Amino acid sequence: MNTKAYAAYSTDKPLAPFTFNRREVGPLDVKIDITYCGVCHSDIHMAHNDWGMSVYPVVPGHEIIGRVTEVGKKVTAFKKGDLVGVGCMVDSCRECSACKDDLEQFCEKGMTMTYGSPDPIMGGMTHGGYSDKIVVDEKFVLRVSEKLDEKAVAPLLCAGITTYSPLRHWEVKKGDKVGVIGLGGLGHMGVKFAAAMGAHVVMITTSPNKAADAKRLGAHEVLISKDADAMAAHAGTFDFLLNTVPVGHDINPYMPLLKRDATMAIVGATPLENTHSFGLIMGRKSIAGSLIGGIKETQEMLDFCAEHNIVSDVEVIDMQDINTAYDRIMKSDVKYRFVIDMQSLKNA
Amino acid sequence: MNTKAYAAYSTDKPLAPFTFNRREVGPLDVKIDITYCGVCHSDIHMAHNDWGMSVYPVVPGHEIIGRVTEVGKKVTAFKKGDLVGVGCMVDSCRECSACKDDLEQFCEKGMTMTYGSPDPIMGGMTHGGYSDKIVVDEKFVLRVSEKLDEKAVAPLLCAGITTYSPLRHWEVKKGDKVGVIGLGGLGHMGVKFAAAMGAHVVMITTSPNKAADAKRLGAHEVLISKDADAMAAHAGTFDFLLNTVPVGHDINPYMPLLKRDATMAIVGATPLENTHSFGLIMGRKSIAGSLIGGIKETQEMLDFCAEHNIVSDVEVIDMQDINTAYDRIMKSDVKYRFVIDMQSLKNA
Repeated sequence: MNTKAYAAYSTDKPLAPFTFNRREVGPLDVKIDITYCGVCHSDIHMAHNDWGMSVYPVVPGHEIIGRVTEVGKKVTAFKKGDLVGVGCMVDSCRECSACKDDLEQFCEKGMTMTYGSPDPIMGGMTHGGYSDKIVVDEKFVLRVSEKLDEKAVAPLLCAGITTYSPLRHWEVKKGDKVGVIGLGGLGHMGVKFAAAMGAHVVMITTSPNKAADAKRLGAHEVLISKDADAMAAHAGTFDFLLNTVPVGHDINPYMPLLKRDATMAIVGATPLENTHSFGLIMGRKSIAGSLIGGIKETQEMLDFCAEHNIVSDVEVIDMQDINTAYDRIMKSDVKYRFVIDMQSLKNA
Repeated sequence: MNTKAYAAYSTDKPLAPFTFNRREVGPLDVKIDITYCGVCHSDIHMAHNDWGMSVYPVVPGHEIIGRVTEVGKKVTAFKKGDLVGVGCMVDSCRECSACKDDLEQFCEKGMTMTYGSPDPIMGGMTHGGYSDKIVVDEKFVLRVSEKLDEKAVAPLLCAGITTYSPLRHWEVKKGDKVGVIGLGGLGHMGVKFAAAMGAHVVMITTSPNKAADAKRLGAHEVLISKDADAMAAHAGTFDFLLNTVPVGHDINPYMPLLKRDATMAIVGATPLENTHSFGLIMGRKSIAGSLIGGIKETQEMLDFCAEHNIVSDVEVIDMQDINTAYDRIMKSDVKYRFVIDMQSLKNA
């Protein structure tokens, strides 16, 4: 079926209108009219081919919210009119140990990403949410509560689950002292989740001017990482650190903050500059990675958000503003996530 | 009491004879006639002030074996004639949470190292095992089985516990596939322990010429880390990696070897060059540090060695040969640990 979208055509050109064919609705498929799509930093990496894996044209977008307009004849979980979401994945092998453990993001045969993966049905590459509609297997569609502001739900599908999953996996609980490093699209969700889980949340940032906003989001304290005295005063006191910094940085100064046997989880795909094992050895500490979350956990996160009334802080833009939005993201000029109002594409 | 020893006097001079006063035997002290002392790579770092913390003269040595010659009147655990060992620590605060958890190496007030720590009793700095005798609080003295070759037991006090502790902490068990990275003083003990714990042990080394010896020590397979095809063939199969490399190196190539959620434990205090979070994020993997082990676990390790007849592979030298031994260690020319026969010092 004919689909309107915006695509990147090369490493250096702005995104521009693109039309392509979506697959027809199969027996297990859900067709979604996209209402909003969040703008993730990785959309920019893929548009610019920063990871060397982009096949043009690239239609980004994996923070998708919309309404079901049609379901396949074997679909049981959804019906026309449902408010739903689609995140970073649209398929996986469903048979490997990772898939069986509800960790499709680690599928041993490779998950099918929402955009930029080889498309097993249509050929070519999958195309994402910068478009008016999408067709997805019901297994990879999430239920969204009508209680929440749907445009502000969109970023939960990536920024939300990426921060929720490590907080759950490393069992953050009431009373724990949790540091969230970096206040951006991911960090602001990390603060909200950790606070809702009952933790004592410390925003750790290089920027003193982010302090007030961090507290508004739920942080109990703000620690300026360039302040050596303040860092020393917090040494050995953190149960968990969630590192959301999206660019290369030196992690050594953060390690002394952790208690013995504690972990810093990293969710950004970045160089860890000048890492020295000394900070790990002293106190038997760990650095770990975490990648989005499985479908089951993503649903759990959305349900947690409905229960705790958690959404992302967003700035809504038209599809036509996407290139300006990319420029502003590169300058960290967004609080905290751009979301595209897809009506602007439909009206164009 | 008057004590003969060898000491480093500055960063660039060879070690030379030194005489100093040991403390007298207090009520809880054990006096030990040192028979053998292992030579650890960190002895060289301290002799050369590589870590910027050396106060000269430095009497190295924290792999100490000897016979009890005298005990304080309140000592209950040891008697004259016992075969005993002393490792990297001779005291700690005994009151902090780490000490209470039998992890004195992480004492929150700082353990007293066997050499090179401020000496709370004699003033100045503590002096180690390159000497004819030592006086140590019974809490930091280990029992050694008469079944084992005492000269080959000496390196267990540091190289042994440093590799045993992470294998236990990360719960290596029968049937696990364990990789030991680096075949030196630590690595050769890691292979012996992991094999004795029932693991399928793979020696991971840059040097094909170490393969035969690795198998003699107990490795079931040898993986040459420079062989990209071989590394790829082992991808995603390891339950645990024990990284014993003592110098700065790139850890990224090892991360794909681990299974999902698995850990690489690092025991060397070294730069981890060019670390990238990608290898952690893909599969939710961890890099952790480990530092020697507590006194309780060190005793457990020595008992495990007696039960499984495990000792270090050693080359015995005279005290007077120490500077040549240091040069050979720097060239990795030792299989796998030098041990000083302290009779040579007593006869001098």
